[in-house]
Amino acid sequence: MLTGQKIEFSYKDNDYNGIFISSDNEKTTIKLDNGYNITVKNEDIKIKNVYGNIQKNKDIQMKNVEKHGKNNVYILTTGGTIGSSIDYETGAVKPVKDISYLYNYVNNIDDYNLFHENMDNILSENVDSKKWINFARKAKEKMDNNSSIIIFHGTDTMQYSAAALSFMFEDQTNPIIFTGSQRSSDRPSSDAFLNIEGSIHFSSMDVGEVCIAMHSDTSDNNISLHRGVRARKMHTSKRDAFRTIDNSEIAIYNNGKIKINAGYKKTGKNNILNDKLNDNISIVYFYPGMREEDFYNMVYNKYAVIIMGTGLGHVSENIIKVIKKLSRDVYFFMASQCIYGGVNLNVYSTGRELLKANVIPLYDMLAETAMVKAMYLSANYSDNFVNLMKTNLRGEINNRILW
Amino acid sequence: MLTGQKIEFSYKDNDYNGIFISSDNEKTTIKLDNGYNITVKNEDIKIKNVYGNIQKNKDIQMKNVEKHGKNNVYILTTGGTIGSSIDYETGAVKPVKDISYLYNYVNNIDDYNLFHENMDNILSENVDSKKWINFARKAKEKMDNNSSIIIFHGTDTMQYSAAALSFMFEDQTNPIIFTGSQRSSDRPSSDAFLNIEGSIHFSSMDVGEVCIAMHSDTSDNNISLHRGVRARKMHTSKRDAFRTIDNSEIAIYNNGKIKINAGYKKTGKNNILNDKLNDNISIVYFYPGMREEDFYNMVYNKYAVIIMGTGLGHVSENIIKVIKKLSRDVYFFMASQCIYGGVNLNVYSTGRELLKANVIPLYDMLAETAMVKAMYLSANYSDNFVNLMKTNLRGEINNRILW
Repeated sequence: MLTGQKIEFSYKDNDYNGIFISSDNEKTTIKLDNGYNITVKNEDIKIKNVYGNIQKNKDIQMKNVEKHGKNNVYILTTGGTIGSSIDYETGAVKPVKDISYLYNYVNNIDDYNLFHENMDNILSENVDSKKWINFARKAKEKMDNNSSIIIFHGTDTMQYSAAALSFMFEDQTNPIIFTGSQRSSDRPSSDAFLNIEGSIHFSSMDVGEVCIAMHSDTSDNNISLHRGVRARKMHTSKRDAFRTIDNSEIAIYNNGKIKINAGYKKTGKNNILNDKLNDNISIVYFYPGMREEDFYNMVYNKYAVIIMGTGLGHVSENIIKVIKKLSRDVYFFMASQCIYGGVNLNVYSTGRELLKANVIPLYDMLAETAMVKAMYLSANYSDNFVNLMKTNLRGEINNRILW
Repeated sequence: MLTGQKIEFSYKDNDYNGIFISSDNEKTTIKLDNGYNITVKNEDIKIKNVYGNIQKNKDIQMKNVEKHGKNNVYILTTGGTIGSSIDYETGAVKPVKDISYLYNYVNNIDDYNLFHENMDNILSENVDSKKWINFARKAKEKMDNNSSIIIFHGTDTMQYSAAALSFMFEDQTNPIIFTGSQRSSDRPSSDAFLNIEGSIHFSSMDVGEVCIAMHSDTSDNNISLHRGVRARKMHTSKRDAFRTIDNSEIAIYNNGKIKINAGYKKTGKNNILNDKLNDNISIVYFYPGMREEDFYNMVYNKYAVIIMGTGLGHVSENIIKVIKKLSRDVYFFMASQCIYGGVNLNVYSTGRELLKANVIPLYDMLAETAMVKAMYLSANYSDNFVNLMKTNLRGEINNRILW
């Protein structure tokens, strides 16, 4: 048996259906229909039927290409929990080389031509702008060949990567969907399979955006399609860690069906990629009692700084003094550590002082998105940097939607 | 009429009840029974009845002292939106000097002896450790005189202040309740009145903790009592901005009744205050592509640093190298920028590398709470600093509850 094959088995005199995950000399792990995995001793289990033949990678790449040309899907694996399995002896995370097992798990998979390229094997906390450029170039190459893109990626920094590609693509012919998992496919209650299933089905939509597809809730039924620039990982371990902040998800997938929840940008005719990024941008989290010299040390040498202020976008008086001194050389932008809601520098005297110090409020843009946007704009549109930062380009600012 | 007096009035031939807020030569602002304020032209409104006599401060301080000795409540105003009204000409925020109008608005207020002292008039983004020490000493003085404490405070940094006083009081005879408002009492839909009403009723409980009382939801009906060390401002502008993270609120107030939702520490026999705090602690927010030199500049001179890492508590490899170099001189603690859920450095190789670099995981402690806790412990218990940081002292770590 190979990972992903549907099986029928008996365990302690009862019959069950499931998906074979892995086995060794002692025990076998099976994903049950309720979405949870069980690991049982080999002596307690009897395999009664194995369904479906696993196809080799090469076969998959040829499958149905001519019949369903528009539903080509290129899966780019970059590492992270989803494209990995745990080596329980060493504790190391291994990349999955063969994703052909998907053919046995994804509903209606015959409508899709799945292709796969392993691009990297990186934990997402180590992803940086160079990787984003690699991902974007590869995605463009595959979209130019009429494929939708699914990127397996670690969940830790998925929101930053999705935002980066969102800005880098001014137009795109196909959806680019980041997906991941909070628990690897060989662990109990893995979310990997359904996240992939949802992603593959979302990839047939006419969404011309870079999105994130992850569990909607703690059940193993619904997958949300989040706009990349408005998504945020809001829980360290739950399967439904990702949330669209201050808006609805674009769509929800459930058992082969997709429900549209919000407007989105349609796919375009060309893939227009700006692949330059400026690395010299940072995020600074304000806290009470922050010292002038500490703030100065954090920001004096940056091109631009995203401040995560308190409430509507505030910092203490002593920090405003430092900003005033530096704001000829450093661009200062304001987001809020509240996460939800927008900044507004017109309500309180502190806000008005920040405006006088040339701090630029970013409405309800997420701080993480703002950093990536500044990296993109300062490298490609430095002449109009501040104006474009305040302009809604990809849906990153709510209530200023362009499409 | 004075602010807070109940009135009956007619407006365009219909009769209404409300609370008088303010008036000038042209218009009058009245809080309606549904919680929203209206501002109408003086010529369109006719006041039919004014109820209740506003009592002078001195009278209030004497009221019922002997009859209901245990329900003394000391309101300490420190500034922020709640203890202020807007001067619409200058835009400045003015402190409220006389809070006697509360007597006309809070239900069952005859059960309480209200006292008031104006301690400060500060926007909460400017509150620092010196202010926390002032607040704590004043609260101890009043609790020693058998009063519960309500502190009017700006919402921006209320969670930091509440956490600071939580740690500084090892034991306390009465509840200390921070409250504030998202909109000042002279603005439409102010949340100030009900937050105060809820706080006053909560102050009669036997909660020996430092808490935050703010709107539970967007209606004007329910007030939540949050444990200070687990509360977080999660919206920049909504009335229900505060949330207890990863737990239930202690209690909910609704129309004179209190529903207990979670366990809490009971009031003690003495007020034990440690009023030393170490200012040299900071929060650093990790982001992808963070440069070694930037991280170094942020942390090299600190006593301790709370890192807000990604996911389960991760940073990139290059940052781990800097941590390894500095961790003999600087204490590094790990919290997560996900806000919800706990860190765990045992799952991935990055986490294990961080443990080897002497980074100390803080379970599900909020980063803001962790900073304040480190300020408290390093000043008062430096010999046992790291162990106590990992120990649940005030309910700041879930699933490790002591009482």
